[in-house]
Amino acid sequence: MSGWVAVAGLGPGADALVTPEVTEALGQATDLVGYIPYVARVPDRDGLTRHASDNRVELERAAHALELAAAGKRVVVASSGDPGVFAMASALFEALEAGPQAWRCIDIRVLPGITAMLAAAARAGAPLGHDFCAINLSDNLKPWAMIERRLRLAAQADFAMAFYNPRSRARPEGFARTLDILRQECGPDRLILFARAVSTDDEELRVVRLEDAAPDMADMRTMVIVGSSRTRLIERSGSPILYTPRWAA
Amino acid sequence: MSGWVAVAGLGPGADALVTPEVTEALGQATDLVGYIPYVARVPDRDGLTRHASDNRVELERAAHALELAAAGKRVVVASSGDPGVFAMASALFEALEAGPQAWRCIDIRVLPGITAMLAAAARAGAPLGHDFCAINLSDNLKPWAMIERRLRLAAQADFAMAFYNPRSRARPEGFARTLDILRQECGPDRLILFARAVSTDDEELRVVRLEDAAPDMADMRTMVIVGSSRTRLIERSGSPILYTPRWAA
Repeated sequence: MSGWVAVAGLGPGADALVTPEVTEALGQATDLVGYIPYVARVPDRDGLTRHASDNRVELERAAHALELAAAGKRVVVASSGDPGVFAMASALFEALEAGPQAWRCIDIRVLPGITAMLAAAARAGAPLGHDFCAINLSDNLKPWAMIERRLRLAAQADFAMAFYNPRSRARPEGFARTLDILRQECGPDRLILFARAVSTDDEELRVVRLEDAAPDMADMRTMVIVGSSRTRLIERSGSPILYTPRWAA
Repeated sequence: MSGWVAVAGLGPGADALVTPEVTEALGQATDLVGYIPYVARVPDRDGLTRHASDNRVELERAAHALELAAAGKRVVVASSGDPGVFAMASALFEALEAGPQAWRCIDIRVLPGITAMLAAAARAGAPLGHDFCAINLSDNLKPWAMIERRLRLAAQADFAMAFYNPRSRARPEGFARTLDILRQECGPDRLILFARAVSTDDEELRVVRLEDAAPDMADMRTMVIVGSSRTRLIERSGSPILYTPRWAA
């Protein structure tokens, strides 16, 4: 079988953050599969067939990619950020596990990318420079009670926290609840970063204390990072630097 | 002031995982500062002065980079993986905060890279495809009691866990303790990945259950990832796939 699937991370937006490994896979592909805006980030060329699909059809998209590869195509599944962090890699393996045995012979690679939390952290300073966790705040695929439990335990562990999908159109109240829980567990002075559309022309960064954080500071393009108890701001000309020291007492 | 500092992530080892942004900064630099093996990864060229230093002198190295930039040099601080994850970015900001006020005018950028846990996860499948945490197991900079508390809370939150610096030469007993705590909290069947020297010629991956995990499966070049309660193995020809589904009940 000569077909393959590469689940490729396109990074947060800027071309300068796409790895050469991903660029090479895109150059070899016969088929490009993915969510509409991610497929749109890859330039057209002869010999590349594009299969853009809507949000929330990850399993169908994954099965389609595996079918194409089983038929001998060289398929890139385009993912934003890193494909292994709240993105297409897990969906592909769910489809693989549920699919025909023959699919298990397909050559599958996951090509890592710059995930949103690390791009946002780099632009703000180094808020994830000590122990941290990453939580998907969308309750599409898990119950809210699990999210709340994880938020409280992560706060008790004094992790910095990176939140993906902080505010969905369908359930905007979830992020308001998240901020309430964080204020209870971490107090009003804890620093929180809202990083929107990092590495694109629309990039906006904002650091406030939890007491001043409002749900509408995040939208669907925003990455949110809450510091640990040790996270600090360095004031200077230009934007301040948000960072977490390497040491802890 | 025309000098600058770029704290740049070289990724886990392979050139194909170095972003174009980092490559460009290396091309513009007059001075390269970093831990000996990371500086060794950057080819020599005319006009680039190399300043390689030993491990555990991060603050001195950071201050040196800032001094050079304040004197007008274009300085790249070479970091393995991503500079914001248990690497040089936080050390640079610690030095900045403790240093002279004039340093606060220096143009400082953090250039993200592919961090070890995401490279390891990609090679194994997608074990970090659901909520997860990242913990530095080195107790050089924090007390062991804090590490133990974080391990237990992370297990109770049912996070997948990525461990940096699992086994230091100076304190090999720490990782044995970690495995004991994980067996207590997660039971004997939980899956654990040992990913050594990912993306290099020495790469080795091994997945076992916690009951079969031994301290000597990790060395200084190993990234360790423990699955959540939902992390699964897909058996197939070739190496199995380790992944965590996107959903949770």
